[in-house]
Amino acid sequence: MEYFPEVKKVSFEGKDSKNPLTFKYYDPDRLILGKKMKDHLRFAVAYWHTLKGVGSDMFGAGSWKRPWETVSDPMRRAEETLYAAFEFFTKLGVDYYCFHDRDIAPEGQNFSESCKNLDYIVKVARKLQNDSGIKLLWGTANCFSNPRYTHGAGTNPDPKVFAYACAQVKHAMEATQELGGENYVFWGGREGYETLLNTNYALEQELFARFLQMAVDYKRELGFDGTLLIEPKPKEPTKHQYDFDSATVLGFLRQYNLQDEFKLNIEANHATLAGHTFQHELTVAAAAGALGSVDANTGDMLLGWDTDQFPTNIYDAVYAMLVIQQAGGFTTGGLNFDAKARRGSVDGLDLFYGHIAAMDTFARGLLIAVKIIEDSMLEQFIADRYAGYNSGFGAKVLAGKADFRQAEVLVTANEEPVPASGRQEYLENLINSYI
Amino acid sequence: MEYFPEVKKVSFEGKDSKNPLTFKYYDPDRLILGKKMKDHLRFAVAYWHTLKGVGSDMFGAGSWKRPWETVSDPMRRAEETLYAAFEFFTKLGVDYYCFHDRDIAPEGQNFSESCKNLDYIVKVARKLQNDSGIKLLWGTANCFSNPRYTHGAGTNPDPKVFAYACAQVKHAMEATQELGGENYVFWGGREGYETLLNTNYALEQELFARFLQMAVDYKRELGFDGTLLIEPKPKEPTKHQYDFDSATVLGFLRQYNLQDEFKLNIEANHATLAGHTFQHELTVAAAAGALGSVDANTGDMLLGWDTDQFPTNIYDAVYAMLVIQQAGGFTTGGLNFDAKARRGSVDGLDLFYGHIAAMDTFARGLLIAVKIIEDSMLEQFIADRYAGYNSGFGAKVLAGKADFRQAEVLVTANEEPVPASGRQEYLENLINSYI
Amino acid sequence: MEYFPEVKKVSFEGKDSKNPLTFKYYDPDRLILGKKMKDHLRFAVAYWHTLKGVGSDMFGAGSWKRPWETVSDPMRRAEETLYAAFEFFTKLGVDYYCFHDRDIAPEGQNFSESCKNLDYIVKVARKLQNDSGIKLLWGTANCFSNPRYTHGAGTNPDPKVFAYACAQVKHAMEATQELGGENYVFWGGREGYETLLNTNYALEQELFARFLQMAVDYKRELGFDGTLLIEPKPKEPTKHQYDFDSATVLGFLRQYNLQDEFKLNIEANHATLAGHTFQHELTVAAAAGALGSVDANTGDMLLGWDTDQFPTNIYDAVYAMLVIQQAGGFTTGGLNFDAKARRGSVDGLDLFYGHIAAMDTFARGLLIAVKIIEDSMLEQFIADRYAGYNSGFGAKVLAGKADFRQAEVLVTANEEPVPASGRQEYLENLINSYI
Amino acid sequence: MEYFPEVKKVSFEGKDSKNPLTFKYYDPDRLILGKKMKDHLRFAVAYWHTLKGVGSDMFGAGSWKRPWETVSDPMRRAEETLYAAFEFFTKLGVDYYCFHDRDIAPEGQNFSESCKNLDYIVKVARKLQNDSGIKLLWGTANCFSNPRYTHGAGTNPDPKVFAYACAQVKHAMEATQELGGENYVFWGGREGYETLLNTNYALEQELFARFLQMAVDYKRELGFDGTLLIEPKPKEPTKHQYDFDSATVLGFLRQYNLQDEFKLNIEANHATLAGHTFQHELTVAAAAGALGSVDANTGDMLLGWDTDQFPTNIYDAVYAMLVIQQAGGFTTGGLNFDAKARRGSVDGLDLFYGHIAAMDTFARGLLIAVKIIEDSMLEQFIADRYAGYNSGFGAKVLAGKADFRQAEVLVTANEEPVPASGRQEYLENLINSYI
Repeated sequence: MEYFPEVKKVSFEGKDSKNPLTFKYYDPDRLILGKKMKDHLRFAVAYWHTLKGVGSDMFGAGSWKRPWETVSDPMRRAEETLYAAFEFFTKLGVDYYCFHDRDIAPEGQNFSESCKNLDYIVKVARKLQNDSGIKLLWGTANCFSNPRYTHGAGTNPDPKVFAYACAQVKHAMEATQELGGENYVFWGGREGYETLLNTNYALEQELFARFLQMAVDYKRELGFDGTLLIEPKPKEPTKHQYDFDSATVLGFLRQYNLQDEFKLNIEANHATLAGHTFQHELTVAAAAGALGSVDANTGDMLLGWDTDQFPTNIYDAVYAMLVIQQAGGFTTGGLNFDAKARRGSVDGLDLFYGHIAAMDTFARGLLIAVKIIEDSMLEQFIADRYAGYNSGFGAKVLAGKADFRQAEVLVTANEEPVPASGRQEYLENLINSYI
Repeated sequence: MEYFPEVKKVSFEGKDSKNPLTFKYYDPDRLILGKKMKDHLRFAVAYWHTLKGVGSDMFGAGSWKRPWETVSDPMRRAEETLYAAFEFFTKLGVDYYCFHDRDIAPEGQNFSESCKNLDYIVKVARKLQNDSGIKLLWGTANCFSNPRYTHGAGTNPDPKVFAYACAQVKHAMEATQELGGENYVFWGGREGYETLLNTNYALEQELFARFLQMAVDYKRELGFDGTLLIEPKPKEPTKHQYDFDSATVLGFLRQYNLQDEFKLNIEANHATLAGHTFQHELTVAAAAGALGSVDANTGDMLLGWDTDQFPTNIYDAVYAMLVIQQAGGFTTGGLNFDAKARRGSVDGLDLFYGHIAAMDTFARGLLIAVKIIEDSMLEQFIADRYAGYNSGFGAKVLAGKADFRQAEVLVTANEEPVPASGRQEYLENLINSYI
Repeated sequence: MEYFPEVKKVSFEGKDSKNPLTFKYYDPDRLILGKKMKDHLRFAVAYWHTLKGVGSDMFGAGSWKRPWETVSDPMRRAEETLYAAFEFFTKLGVDYYCFHDRDIAPEGQNFSESCKNLDYIVKVARKLQNDSGIKLLWGTANCFSNPRYTHGAGTNPDPKVFAYACAQVKHAMEATQELGGENYVFWGGREGYETLLNTNYALEQELFARFLQMAVDYKRELGFDGTLLIEPKPKEPTKHQYDFDSATVLGFLRQYNLQDEFKLNIEANHATLAGHTFQHELTVAAAAGALGSVDANTGDMLLGWDTDQFPTNIYDAVYAMLVIQQAGGFTTGGLNFDAKARRGSVDGLDLFYGHIAAMDTFARGLLIAVKIIEDSMLEQFIADRYAGYNSGFGAKVLAGKADFRQAEVLVTANEEPVPASGRQEYLENLINSYI
Repeated sequence: MEYFPEVKKVSFEGKDSKNPLTFKYYDPDRLILGKKMKDHLRFAVAYWHTLKGVGSDMFGAGSWKRPWETVSDPMRRAEETLYAAFEFFTKLGVDYYCFHDRDIAPEGQNFSESCKNLDYIVKVARKLQNDSGIKLLWGTANCFSNPRYTHGAGTNPDPKVFAYACAQVKHAMEATQELGGENYVFWGGREGYETLLNTNYALEQELFARFLQMAVDYKRELGFDGTLLIEPKPKEPTKHQYDFDSATVLGFLRQYNLQDEFKLNIEANHATLAGHTFQHELTVAAAAGALGSVDANTGDMLLGWDTDQFPTNIYDAVYAMLVIQQAGGFTTGGLNFDAKARRGSVDGLDLFYGHIAAMDTFARGLLIAVKIIEDSMLEQFIADRYAGYNSGFGAKVLAGKADFRQAEVLVTANEEPVPASGRQEYLENLINSYI
């Protein structure tokens, strides 16, 4: 069955095209700095939102009627959904997808049945990947939807649930490896607390570190050579999530000596929920050499929950691509659209519109960022601003050879320092001149 | 001159007193768990707000007319202000105060003159401390108000300003030592950025670590044996401050191997600006063994800036005192009222009302927290909730002896785990029963 | 079947009781200012959360297993749920409940069947009300969950959906009348927009006014003599709801000459989502003579969505009861607990704990508010503060007889006015002295 | 004296210019829809930020050294500042400016002296306007900075202060008329409350209405034919401002029958502080026929105070210009840059960079908005979406001829309505295609 008969193949037609089912900027094979655009951007579709989303929210039932959801047998439905998925990926022209174990295969009556279900579907997916050339950017385990995880997975007060999370991650990591996944992601949807009144914070931190260490151990045993990623988010579904933001996760990893084992998967909407810009979170991760992958979406700055909208803001894309390019670009990571069509975007066609808008926005972001980098006016401005640290007392400071007494001598001898302009308005206008 | 003639000495009269210039709960010498109430609470007055505040805001000039501010010569004014301060401390019955260098002594024409000014005032303060028995909880350097620090102090793009901050901190640390200060605080009011467009984030992080290391080195050289404290704050005055919250600071300290040299000074209003509860920030610091001292105030949850109000919410005080008591109480730290009367509270009398309200609130918080701890119903609830980790697989996890394979075996053998109630509503009602 | 066998009847035992299934403050027949406590408070249970809630959130399935939900036939399940409800109301000792049409009876295959379902259940409810003496505080129509209302009900771009909302409200109003409901509530869960890009704002405002006018007309025709209430909420589920807050709704009603037909149903959590305190929203409504009823719950000030928690904060209850008492108390309105147990509070028992905590909190709020009012220190403070308007130019201003020229003459003659202290800290401490 | 010798005249050079002191988009005399660009945009400089700002914030002293501030005599300084202002306006090529009375002339020892000061400066300004052709967009009175207004101006508990505000507004309105101001603005910086504990909300509302009515009366008497504008802001400096947002102000005006006397001055940063988009506030004002003028700036969505940044976001400008154009464009209003350079933008040159960035952004916004309107794809989409109201039951609803019974008949006869897609993602991409 063809699930999206109204769409053939989305192709690049350039910025003057009036056809909304084409790319105006995303030209996958165009060479940018010697690399294909698609290899810079490494776009991925999020299976959960795009294939499994139904358009529900806390105040209303699903408004989207997907034909692949009409099959009544769960395993047959899962299989049909995979066919719909690969039809969508192919027509859209995306190279990667991402999933949770429970997205692609239904949970069974017990753990063994759940594993069996997943194994079967992985085989189907393997074949579809081979046939289409589409690859798995990352896999993960959904350890947050089932009520057993109400009080956490790797931080659950009940070791039976902790064990369940271990077993589930083990199997999801195996599935990811089987499908050639380039990364395995940890998003701890229930790793946090609802109230400190009933929580042993220190113990839960300890448990979480143990959980991650066990995952690292098993990764070695399994021989999985993808990257392990942690995805920060400050709140929702819990009142306070432990992986609050990049800095918190990096600090936690250092505390438990796990900093060499994990990189970060930065999500734009999670950044802003934590009170940071997307660019900030990417910068923090990049400065630590831990920028692994990106969940490219956008939140609504006036709403306090994870709206997971398709990213269509050119500024966000430019700033993100600047950081990513300056950090050397993606290795195993990519741009995963962890985004859902609005509840009112009820048609299958809206899935295309959303992805096209997002892909064009990031393609444009890449083109602009590369132009800014090539022109080097921004880079030069910053280099000049800190030039004082290239010599003298400044250089000593960076070399760890300065002390307070030297500083005092200098200050007593120097004139009062006068601040140079930071030129924010000029720089914002400079960026606008590239858009 | 007597600056507060309308107040004699604020004394404890018990909760039925109708006199607003008495304590209803704060009974300094009352023994609680074998320790005097005042030694549990270690209240301090913040010199900047209480003595130097003028009731201005971004939209209006100072509305408070303080008699000690009428002296025209800056050094004479500084001295008179000290007399007013000690009159206030004594009448209020507080044991500690805290200051920035520029609060107690005016900045001079150049660095040497500023040092001379500070040295002179420190002598006066030394005498007043000796005469009154009032002590210095902590000192600090104001490296944020002077325009030279516009772009940062220990993270300034100009090494001349970096050096200035070093020299100023050196001198402020010496003043703190001279006055027997029990702690020295770093609040990096300009350590952050306005826009990433002009900022080398990684370099500024590096600079900040160097700056702190130099402070540690000088502390050793000086023989200052107080505690070094860092005070997290997420934003304001900069758009993004590097010491965002406890977790960020702890991670930073670990990254640069400074974790044994610094503890945290947690401020309630900064906690909520960062998206956390006051209790959360205290808990994070305590779990890391880094709970040093507290800036006891409150923000307004509907306003997005540091309102620095006097803390009068009993819940906040109870939760704070629970964490502080469970962490073993203060050693060198205390409860500093980093709080200012509202702009409309124009009288000197309002300074008393504000501090009395805050001291009674925290005294009450202490009494309630101790009762909760003695009853141990809350503690027992939590112990029971995590009891599974005392034996079996749970104990193995904590001992670092568990792995994913063992977990899988268990899960396959076990029944589906059923979540026990977290009982949040019951626990909230339990807390209410103590109030 | 007995659904809550672990609970007999929750009774008042006073504040020293250690039994968590008793009231410590709520003593229904105690006379306060000549009126029974229960008649001051008029507590109601929210059918949707308490009977129909399943403990799900956007990231997870229901964690609560309610025995009445196990019946497979929808109509039988609805009937069993009613029995469970009345058992709960009776054991809890609450006098009122509130419902949406779709809470108590399932939606049918078409509109006629939905009406038939509702009519049948209304008969059962009528009998249970008669047998128990429990009354309906208000009814309403759920015009937001069904996908047909995706783009709004009374503001839908499609007149067919607008008509559906009309018909559904008509029937729900009839059911409310049949059950002796004292109010009928409008909460416009989808009356708002997702993006202005696809929205004719002015037309939707017009439609909404027409919709409400038609409801007023039908109320007259039906002879329903309860109060019509509008419940403000600023956002969620839509990005921007038209009934943003009290001031917005009151302005809208005035614009369309509907101000005499509607009062407001103020919800605490909606107040804070709109950037106001609960007390503010109550005050705005009361000042307009439009304080109809209250949805008593609490949000989490650090979370950006409607958490609908049980209200357990004593301050909130005191401030709310102060406004309500000063406005003359409830007439047809009451305190409806639009609150749900946390997802982790998985037991039926938690429903009792939540309601008991909330009822005791508001009973305490009432007792404290009445004491504050009787002492009149707060009232007197305010009266003194504005006393200048009782005579002279101030009185002329209020009488509409002053003009700018008179003011200028006065100012030129007067000394510079000096602000008196607003005494915020003193007043906060005064409130604490009553708690 | 020439205050900005580094700048000659900022001229239009087109988008490929590399000179940062030129316009890339703002081409004042270019005809757009038959009207000059400058007459569409009506740009104004805000005197307070640009001439009187010193780069201070709550944590630091002014970092900007303006040569015109070095004159020690206040009146001479005021005069020099005016010369600097008109040099700036002229070199920038802006047609309007806006002021508060206390910006352009210093407050005197008493009211009479303040009036005299203002009168003198108004004469100088009159001449400078005549010489340069630059006009006054609006004037206003600063009734918030002086401590006398601590507890409000037109809502002050002390009628002496109320009278002062009346007299000051009277004189400021006269000055505005004298200078040919096209509007007079009310921004009630202290009209609100700090705590409801000391506030008679209902009385303060009444006072504020009286104050505005007196202003209307005096406007008539004076024969001032400009537009009276109210500027909404939700908070800051007070905890809660009465003119919270557009809907609140419009409701207030209707309540006191003032709706025909005032229009709104919408500020972007105030919109977002109130939880709305800039576009939303403009749309609400426009729908009420009350879109008077605009304070064009931007806030920082992650910061909770009025940052008053120069508006450089193209999306914001496009959406604003769409609403303004669709509302018929400005009549007496314009785009006033109520924006200040960042504290770190210490040079006079940064004032140019900020304004150039903002003017180019809005010029671009105008060009894009006009293109979108001319293409009419967006307009057509909306027209189609609501087409159902052009006939049948929909038309009856709008004509006020429909009732619930008719609706019920229709619904019973109709099939279940199916929602059409709202196409948000498609529309966002459509907007991007114009940028």
